[in-house]
Amino acid sequence: MSFPDRFRSAGAVGPGAEIDRLIQLFAKLPGLGPRSAQRLVLALIKKREQLMTPLAEALATAARSIVTCSTCGNLDTHDPCHLCADPGRDDTLLCVVEEVDDLWAMERAGIFRGRYHVLGGVLSAMDGVGPDDLGIARLAERAADGTVREVILALSATVDGQATAHYVADRLKTAGVRISALAHGLPMGGELDYLDEGTLTAALKSRREI
Amino acid sequence: MSFPDRFRSAGAVGPGAEIDRLIQLFAKLPGLGPRSAQRLVLALIKKREQLMTPLAEALATAARSIVTCSTCGNLDTHDPCHLCADPGRDDTLLCVVEEVDDLWAMERAGIFRGRYHVLGGVLSAMDGVGPDDLGIARLAERAADGTVREVILALSATVDGQATAHYVADRLKTAGVRISALAHGLPMGGELDYLDEGTLTAALKSRREI
Repeated sequence: MSFPDRFRSAGAVGPGAEIDRLIQLFAKLPGLGPRSAQRLVLALIKKREQLMTPLAEALATAARSIVTCSTCGNLDTHDPCHLCADPGRDDTLLCVVEEVDDLWAMERAGIFRGRYHVLGGVLSAMDGVGPDDLGIARLAERAADGTVREVILALSATVDGQATAHYVADRLKTAGVRISALAHGLPMGGELDYLDEGTLTAALKSRREI
Repeated sequence: MSFPDRFRSAGAVGPGAEIDRLIQLFAKLPGLGPRSAQRLVLALIKKREQLMTPLAEALATAARSIVTCSTCGNLDTHDPCHLCADPGRDDTLLCVVEEVDDLWAMERAGIFRGRYHVLGGVLSAMDGVGPDDLGIARLAERAADGTVREVILALSATVDGQATAHYVADRLKTAGVRISALAHGLPMGGELDYLDEGTLTAALKSRREI
């Protein structure tokens, strides 16, 4: 029996209900279960002024104001988002990523100063995700607008990610742009002993002279 | 460099700030770092109606309404809390726990139908927590009120927890009540091979005839 049910059956109907509800909501978030949600809620209650009230307000504000950028698919309080609106970025480079967190990961690395295009997922026969669900037609339009010179496919090195990369590359063939993909190889700090054969094969094939 | 700083340095001052702030607030919660906080925030934004808005409201309501019970130290929307106010519970049994989550753990087990007393921590020379910080005088008062017949010390089997148990037992000597503590022994499902010697010693000393 889960905690909230148990708690309720112990006599709490009116009182305790607010705490129960909070725990249940937190437990729905990725990576959190009933126990860790309970720990979070207790920590929040203990830091009511510093943490709980600000978090409630920040969530309410974000829920009201965050929109999906109609150009690139990023999440922001403005449409177009600050990355699409930034005049300092290179319009000739278009980086295709799966999800918004991948875009954030690229920005965190701080090495790419072009524009982005968020697919919103990868092609997957299993989950019934086709090219129309990912708006690949829209990407083809952007790629063929005459400004873009190179499309960089920054998709996961998974079967679905690579299948999507090949499909996208195929669709963009007529756009007259250069199409590239992130290199495969050893991750920084990666020890050969712990790497899979696929990575080693890719790293060997793409070896560089030093 | 942490994610929010990096993100900000990449040109986001006004835009992106709401998402940054949410991630920073979540990252302050126990067990969450910048990465897991980012994952939570993305999940929340994707489920705005079902999750983000309800969570904002539940947090605001809880921040307004949750109080500490002045009798036992439990957290609830009422003072006295629903456990202290419940006429069906046994006034002669008083269970002493360290924190509110320990009280919840006891309630989850569903085997105790007496009253509680939350110390709010354990004695700790290292952290400078003394008897006055834990309101042990208040516990002594409750124990000596003539109704309580037994005080059950349900404190952690840690050095600090056990030191606190001994101190509390000593302070309650004059209250004329029976003082007991939770038994030590093998946890359910515990394999001898994996248990420490302290647990094995305690389990052997407290062995029962079957």
